[in-house]
Amino acid sequence: MQIHHTGIATHDAGRLIDLYGDLFDVPVVHEEEFDGLRVVFLDLGNGYFELLEPVKHATVARFLDRHGPGVHHVAVATEDIEAALQTARERGIECIDDDPREGAWGHDVAFLHPNDTGGVLFEFVEQ
Amino acid sequence: MQIHHTGIATHDAGRLIDLYGDLFDVPVVHEEEFDGLRVVFLDLGNGYFELLEPVKHATVARFLDRHGPGVHHVAVATEDIEAALQTARERGIECIDDDPREGAWGHDVAFLHPNDTGGVLFEFVEQ
Repeated sequence: MQIHHTGIATHDAGRLIDLYGDLFDVPVVHEEEFDGLRVVFLDLGNGYFELLEPVKHATVARFLDRHGPGVHHVAVATEDIEAALQTARERGIECIDDDPREGAWGHDVAFLHPNDTGGVLFEFVEQ
Repeated sequence: MQIHHTGIATHDAGRLIDLYGDLFDVPVVHEEEFDGLRVVFLDLGNGYFELLEPVKHATVARFLDRHGPGVHHVAVATEDIEAALQTARERGIECIDDDPREGAWGHDVAFLHPNDTGGVLFEFVEQ
């Protein structure tokens, strides 16, 4: 599997588009409102930063309230998300999504519970 | 610039080597004790997970005490770390390292203050 993206929760995606553009030379390659979030993908060539700004998304808004802005999740690309979930289950990992669901940018996604994975909220992504 | 790695703080790098190996099929490509840390790089092909287990490293140990295990920093690869730091300074970003210093695996590294970068502790890496 390969790195797909790092999800970053923010109150102000516009500011980070501008700042990260300057710092890292990363253009916007995709933007949409999805599931109550403004979602912006910045392209690093070998992966993305996914900015997550809640419009009316309770979970990410609560994350921002509790933790402040910062890294929300780490996404790993897989060619077979069902097999990846099955491996996770066999390792005793709690899967937040029992089955893949549609995520931003039309990807199939599934999240694993961070308590079982070293404190990191991992997302499998199948494009 | 490209994604270089995601730094993950942990109390038990050995457990994560085993778990992430199963979940993501990521082999260990480099391991050393550096600056009071057990540092392990897992290869995803297009970037790395860097596991950070404090042996006698005050900063990462304090991070674990405060936040628990999880994502510690996000590293971006640059071909000119001096120019990257200069750009950050021009944007008014506080640089934790005014000049590049030697990091793990012989890389030149420099960190930016997360308060100025959307809550993410970013590291520039020049290989």
